[in-house]
Amino acid sequence: MKILVINGPNLNLLGTREPEVYGTLTLDAVMCELKKYAEKLGVEIEHFQSNIEGEIVNAIQRARVDCDGILINPAAYTHTSVAIRDAISAVKLPCVEVHLSNIQDREEFRKISLTAPVCVGQISGFGAGSYILGLKGLVDRLNSRKL
Amino acid sequence: MKILVINGPNLNLLGTREPEVYGTLTLDAVMCELKKYAEKLGVEIEHFQSNIEGEIVNAIQRARVDCDGILINPAAYTHTSVAIRDAISAVKLPCVEVHLSNIQDREEFRKISLTAPVCVGQISGFGAGSYILGLKGLVDRLNSRKL
Amino acid sequence: MKILVINGPNLNLLGTREPEVYGTLTLDAVMCELKKYAEKLGVEIEHFQSNIEGEIVNAIQRARVDCDGILINPAAYTHTSVAIRDAISAVKLPCVEVHLSNIQDREEFRKISLTAPVCVGQISGFGAGSYILGLKGLVDRLNSRKL
Amino acid sequence: MKILVINGPNLNLLGTREPEVYGTLTLDAVMCELKKYAEKLGVEIEHFQSNIEGEIVNAIQRARVDCDGILINPAAYTHTSVAIRDAISAVKLPCVEVHLSNIQDREEFRKISLTAPVCVGQISGFGAGSYILGLKGLVDRLNSRKL
Amino acid sequence: MKILVINGPNLNLLGTREPEVYGTLTLDAVMCELKKYAEKLGVEIEHFQSNIEGEIVNAIQRARVDCDGILINPAAYTHTSVAIRDAISAVKLPCVEVHLSNIQDREEFRKISLTAPVCVGQISGFGAGSYILGLKGLVDRLNSRKL
Amino acid sequence: MKILVINGPNLNLLGTREPEVYGTLTLDAVMCELKKYAEKLGVEIEHFQSNIEGEIVNAIQRARVDCDGILINPAAYTHTSVAIRDAISAVKLPCVEVHLSNIQDREEFRKISLTAPVCVGQISGFGAGSYILGLKGLVDRLNSRKL
Amino acid sequence: MKILVINGPNLNLLGTREPEVYGTLTLDAVMCELKKYAEKLGVEIEHFQSNIEGEIVNAIQRARVDCDGILINPAAYTHTSVAIRDAISAVKLPCVEVHLSNIQDREEFRKISLTAPVCVGQISGFGAGSYILGLKGLVDRLNSRKL
Amino acid sequence: MKILVINGPNLNLLGTREPEVYGTLTLDAVMCELKKYAEKLGVEIEHFQSNIEGEIVNAIQRARVDCDGILINPAAYTHTSVAIRDAISAVKLPCVEVHLSNIQDREEFRKISLTAPVCVGQISGFGAGSYILGLKGLVDRLNSRKL
Amino acid sequence: MKILVINGPNLNLLGTREPEVYGTLTLDAVMCELKKYAEKLGVEIEHFQSNIEGEIVNAIQRARVDCDGILINPAAYTHTSVAIRDAISAVKLPCVEVHLSNIQDREEFRKISLTAPVCVGQISGFGAGSYILGLKGLVDRLNSRKL
Amino acid sequence: MKILVINGPNLNLLGTREPEVYGTLTLDAVMCELKKYAEKLGVEIEHFQSNIEGEIVNAIQRARVDCDGILINPAAYTHTSVAIRDAISAVKLPCVEVHLSNIQDREEFRKISLTAPVCVGQISGFGAGSYILGLKGLVDRLNSRKL
Amino acid sequence: MKILVINGPNLNLLGTREPEVYGTLTLDAVMCELKKYAEKLGVEIEHFQSNIEGEIVNAIQRARVDCDGILINPAAYTHTSVAIRDAISAVKLPCVEVHLSNIQDREEFRKISLTAPVCVGQISGFGAGSYILGLKGLVDRLNSRKL
Amino acid sequence: MKILVINGPNLNLLGTREPEVYGTLTLDAVMCELKKYAEKLGVEIEHFQSNIEGEIVNAIQRARVDCDGILINPAAYTHTSVAIRDAISAVKLPCVEVHLSNIQDREEFRKISLTAPVCVGQISGFGAGSYILGLKGLVDRLNSRKL
Repeated sequence: MKILVINGPNLNLLGTREPEVYGTLTLDAVMCELKKYAEKLGVEIEHFQSNIEGEIVNAIQRARVDCDGILINPAAYTHTSVAIRDAISAVKLPCVEVHLSNIQDREEFRKISLTAPVCVGQISGFGAGSYILGLKGLVDRLNSRKL
Repeated sequence: MKILVINGPNLNLLGTREPEVYGTLTLDAVMCELKKYAEKLGVEIEHFQSNIEGEIVNAIQRARVDCDGILINPAAYTHTSVAIRDAISAVKLPCVEVHLSNIQDREEFRKISLTAPVCVGQISGFGAGSYILGLKGLVDRLNSRKL
Repeated sequence: MKILVINGPNLNLLGTREPEVYGTLTLDAVMCELKKYAEKLGVEIEHFQSNIEGEIVNAIQRARVDCDGILINPAAYTHTSVAIRDAISAVKLPCVEVHLSNIQDREEFRKISLTAPVCVGQISGFGAGSYILGLKGLVDRLNSRKL
Repeated sequence: MKILVINGPNLNLLGTREPEVYGTLTLDAVMCELKKYAEKLGVEIEHFQSNIEGEIVNAIQRARVDCDGILINPAAYTHTSVAIRDAISAVKLPCVEVHLSNIQDREEFRKISLTAPVCVGQISGFGAGSYILGLKGLVDRLNSRKL
Repeated sequence: MKILVINGPNLNLLGTREPEVYGTLTLDAVMCELKKYAEKLGVEIEHFQSNIEGEIVNAIQRARVDCDGILINPAAYTHTSVAIRDAISAVKLPCVEVHLSNIQDREEFRKISLTAPVCVGQISGFGAGSYILGLKGLVDRLNSRKL
Repeated sequence: MKILVINGPNLNLLGTREPEVYGTLTLDAVMCELKKYAEKLGVEIEHFQSNIEGEIVNAIQRARVDCDGILINPAAYTHTSVAIRDAISAVKLPCVEVHLSNIQDREEFRKISLTAPVCVGQISGFGAGSYILGLKGLVDRLNSRKL
Repeated sequence: MKILVINGPNLNLLGTREPEVYGTLTLDAVMCELKKYAEKLGVEIEHFQSNIEGEIVNAIQRARVDCDGILINPAAYTHTSVAIRDAISAVKLPCVEVHLSNIQDREEFRKISLTAPVCVGQISGFGAGSYILGLKGLVDRLNSRKL
Repeated sequence: MKILVINGPNLNLLGTREPEVYGTLTLDAVMCELKKYAEKLGVEIEHFQSNIEGEIVNAIQRARVDCDGILINPAAYTHTSVAIRDAISAVKLPCVEVHLSNIQDREEFRKISLTAPVCVGQISGFGAGSYILGLKGLVDRLNSRKL
Repeated sequence: MKILVINGPNLNLLGTREPEVYGTLTLDAVMCELKKYAEKLGVEIEHFQSNIEGEIVNAIQRARVDCDGILINPAAYTHTSVAIRDAISAVKLPCVEVHLSNIQDREEFRKISLTAPVCVGQISGFGAGSYILGLKGLVDRLNSRKL
Repeated sequence: MKILVINGPNLNLLGTREPEVYGTLTLDAVMCELKKYAEKLGVEIEHFQSNIEGEIVNAIQRARVDCDGILINPAAYTHTSVAIRDAISAVKLPCVEVHLSNIQDREEFRKISLTAPVCVGQISGFGAGSYILGLKGLVDRLNSRKL
Repeated sequence: MKILVINGPNLNLLGTREPEVYGTLTLDAVMCELKKYAEKLGVEIEHFQSNIEGEIVNAIQRARVDCDGILINPAAYTHTSVAIRDAISAVKLPCVEVHLSNIQDREEFRKISLTAPVCVGQISGFGAGSYILGLKGLVDRLNSRKL
Repeated sequence: MKILVINGPNLNLLGTREPEVYGTLTLDAVMCELKKYAEKLGVEIEHFQSNIEGEIVNAIQRARVDCDGILINPAAYTHTSVAIRDAISAVKLPCVEVHLSNIQDREEFRKISLTAPVCVGQISGFGAGSYILGLKGLVDRLNSRKL
């Protein structure tokens, strides 16, 4: 089983950008931790990060070939991208949306997600832990172990 | 470590109520599964369900005495209860909000959560699995194992 | 055939409360009249009044056991209760919503009903007569005598 | 006692138009049933149907001459006609608004009624039965038998 | 010089309809008074009243043939008719909009005029006097006596 | 194959009305051109124009008898008529909505179409050419030649 | 009979300010013309212009002493001054609001009048003629010659 | 003279809950202080606190029997409870609404009070002093000593 | 201790202006009563009334020199004046906002206060008594006797 | 004559993506069909597809060099891209916007087009046929054969 | 060349008022610095400060006599004054709007400028430097040195 | 000292695109002028233009390495890009936003800036001069010469 993990714009700065909001771990460290957890779950993960909306659309489309699910943190594009929403709808792979911070406790425009309605579910507020929870939720679902 | 699990209105009908939205497991079955998972994590859970907003406020207040955190599915009160929001703020225990269904993919009024902004985070869309993920997220946080 | 009649908050003051809006008959008198009419229709009615939202949820849930339909005047909760809406959806009994006054001719916030969309229909403006019409509409529907 | 029954636009197609929403009875059949019921109540009914807003205004105005009340299904004009609203206000006859479908459970723009605030009350969701209930409610009121 | 005077829906009931809002003069009396005043101004007036939106459109279109200006009280259609607005734009005759009551002091929906933006100006609140003032304003303008 | 072509209010003034917005061709000239094009496509067209909303509803209803599709420019009623929308829904004939001007580039209230959601599609901005394109689109669809 | 004529901010620039919107007559010329007209009607007028909101409030208050009515062009304060509105309400003199331009055909924020609801009526769009019509309307009303 | 003092949800935590917003005095201490002040004013006070909306409705209804007025801090229910609003309207006792914090300087949803429009007045921002001021205002009013 | 009492526009008409809303006491009488009460509290009060927004700004600024607090009824400027709000923020004196009428029970635009968020608190609905309560609240706070 | 045809994000998945909404033809098949039709019209077409907003801007800018018009399906960017709108305005080539589905009959956010106001016109709802109609409309316009 | 510099309400408190938002320089110091800079640019400046909206209108009007441009910080009146907006439009002098703080990063109501649309441009966020930049921008423009 | 100058989408067309809005200078000419001015200020500037949102995000991120500040004209992305906003927040370099045209005097959607709240300030309306003023403002700030 293979999962594509997508990180949206500015997440490559993780650990340096606004640590009081996003924590001090770098994206590499978070992805490293996530890979270890993926191994425990017996799944492979592939990581993709881009600041360009359309390249994220491309990555989602490519996932149809060899991935079983998508774990995505669309970051800023969560609130503005109909294109990413349409890509997720189009590929018909189960997709889980995660956020480092609790987006319900920030600016008004961050409370609206264009992408969540076409995902399986949404997890926010657990810092890097959101990825761990999101991966578990996605894999459990793919294993039909929905509790 | 002890966690209070709160289920809001109509969740006592789980398994019978709109199974196409909420699944076919009963609340007892879900809580039983959750208790097993809690044991694996080495934490105790106490379960409380009520259809009455003010009794949920009471339960949250009581949690100050002997609980370390709260896992709550406020159900319908998610969208209407300032009282539950204020109770969560007041007790200052870490609280995680979970939902069975993906509330971003339902009626407009279900997209707004009055309680999420005062919680650690929110998890929605994984069916009964949302409780499992929510408990893991809450316990990891309490263990300071934030990845 | 048995119908549960539910009266929401402050309807226990009927006859004394703002008679220019709600008329001078007491709730007992209205229910008495309604019982006589129910007998003519050959149905049994059970009456429940509460000022507590969650108790109305409880009453709706209990109706699954031995009632064939629900006649409800949710009063103030018409405009604020997602919990009562969810309870009506959950029990899957035909439910008719009635109002003493013409809610379209009052304050803006009284024009919106959270509960009506999950009911069979809504009747408002006929004073105590709304109950009579609502009971007839509900029983006719249950008898498959839909004209 | 004489009641004018007014049916608005497209109701002449009843029975053929979207039967899953409006049922399979034709307008003639519904009016025939209603006349029988009117006889039982000892009142005369006159029926008028038009697709033209202004002709409905004309009909309401003419009712002042020889009618005691109006039973109206303004259909599409419910949501757009200030002219019909003004006509009802002007003639000062008691008027009851009825709808075949539950207008609270349809598109947003069908939830708003421009005409209901100047009527005695509103009944919706009982299919053709809405006319029966509306006639009973209107006649009871005219007979001062308001329960 | 000839002016078409148009009265919209329900104005034929003037004098009988809600006299506390619209006064007790009948439409005939008002038009009679207006004709006398027109004579003093040396202009001819033609009067047209209809409850049907499209007939008012037709009347406006016909005015191109032999009229120099239009004095219109669109009544209820003020707030709902794009068709009358388009007709006024199309015929390119100067048009003055009048209202008996002060529409700024009534329901919210009566404050918006779809037709006023394509008229020379708007006069409201002077009862039947609004017609007198409107005619004077229109004729002064046509006479290029704009003060 | 027979197509009913409906033109809404004020389109009878075409060529004279605001030529900078709507062009200088008269409605007769446009319909004449459209008939020639229809002959090339091998279909018959019948033309109906009215300024009265309800008569347009009547025309749509009559089309059920002997027409295969409807080409409609509802003009001003595009933005205000639920009655025409309901008529199109009711007759279940494929209907194409056309506009001379680009309605997205005009007043805010002209951007909203009540009728388009129940049509096959919408074409706007090509002047009289919108009819030609609309007819081709409708006939292609009826011929199942959907490319 | 004495009428206070009040002109709001920037009207002292009349004739020089945006003549394509407001015309080329100076305020003095307009007031001079108005005085002549007032003499014909047999009434005295007193003129007051200020750019200061509170001074207009003062002027309205002073009018209680020796004036029978107020003719006001509140200009920019039409849309922002609750203080002027309250002053008009407080003095209980009949007040007529006039505007040079057609305020319904300008920016959105100019369509809303805070002062009109407490006036007898509103006249807009007749250039300097609006004052003439407004004075006639006010005097006719005071003379009880309401047609 | 007897006054019912009602405290809404979470006020039982006063002194422990968010002291930077609500101060450090416990509810008992505040009520004790209020009782002393009541004695000085020569009135008796009865205190009721509940987290349950419907029980507050019950308490308001009971006040009709032996109380002369109500002093209420509806807390969270201020912004969501039509039921409490209706209860206050129904009992027709003078009611004063108080808030510890300045609700105009907090979240947007706390600026709206559903209950204040049916009260005598509202006092907010004086911490526990709001109760003292509220009691004085209520008693002065009952004594007809309205200054 | 010295308190500046500021009264906004039209309050100089108190007692004559809409007595059914504002009572029959004149402003002089109210201020006289307030001064007596101030003496009892051992504080000096200075009174300032103006109908001009900017003069109220000036007065607030001058208060920095020799006053300890401000008691203000901004009247109409409550709802429109950012300038007064900024002045209150700037002088950093504790300020209490009072209103004669219950502003939550009047027109929608009177429910919004631009000034309250920068005040200590707000008191409304007690007629002239609002000043008494406001002075007491302000002085208690200055005396650090916050209960 | 040469036309640039631009397809926006996710249209490269056409035929596989949500066929119930967008049909089963692949983008290659649609463009192939369109080329044949272009040959019949005697025009050359160049095709460009990208998922990246800025590349679409680039393509529009390049069209100035050797194209006579643009046929664009901006897909998801229709509703979010001011950049594409500005590019169309900037190049001053006639541009026609097409959509496969009837965007008026989908989610609310798809009803708003940021790009249509700067295009010649918009065609939606004819599946792949929308391109055929759009090309015809664009070429007819370029040929000055505007009917 | 002469420039009128206008400072709106509360700017006379500059340096003392909320220094964390507006800095610690007094208005005199800022104007002194600005005058030196003006000398370098070879222009004369005249300074006017008022807390009264209408006096600012007066000052703008007087500028027509002997000034070539206006540099204005309308402060609180930026967001509420149509009168100042109209004055700027009327005098037809180039006007530049400046703000000390970044108004886009403050309360919602400070993001809207009624005056900016009639100015040449707007500069905000540079503290006292905004005046320097604004003067340079205005003088460069007057010198036709628009780069 | 080194400043990164970023130009957003379609600014590469400057001088050719809508010259009545944006002027006739090309982007090269404007940047050339800006470089000369930078030399006078003793700072180095690097220029980057892209039509692709994500590449602008990349450029902002790279600026952390060797730049002291950013001067950005985000053009169309001003109104739609949360990603650029987040990048500016993340790099923590002082950033000044400039616009050629007065964005407050254009379409409604151009009045809202997502990026300005995280910038030092905003300058708009001075044509190419906005860059000169923006650079001066930014450099003055970096030099701590804030007047």
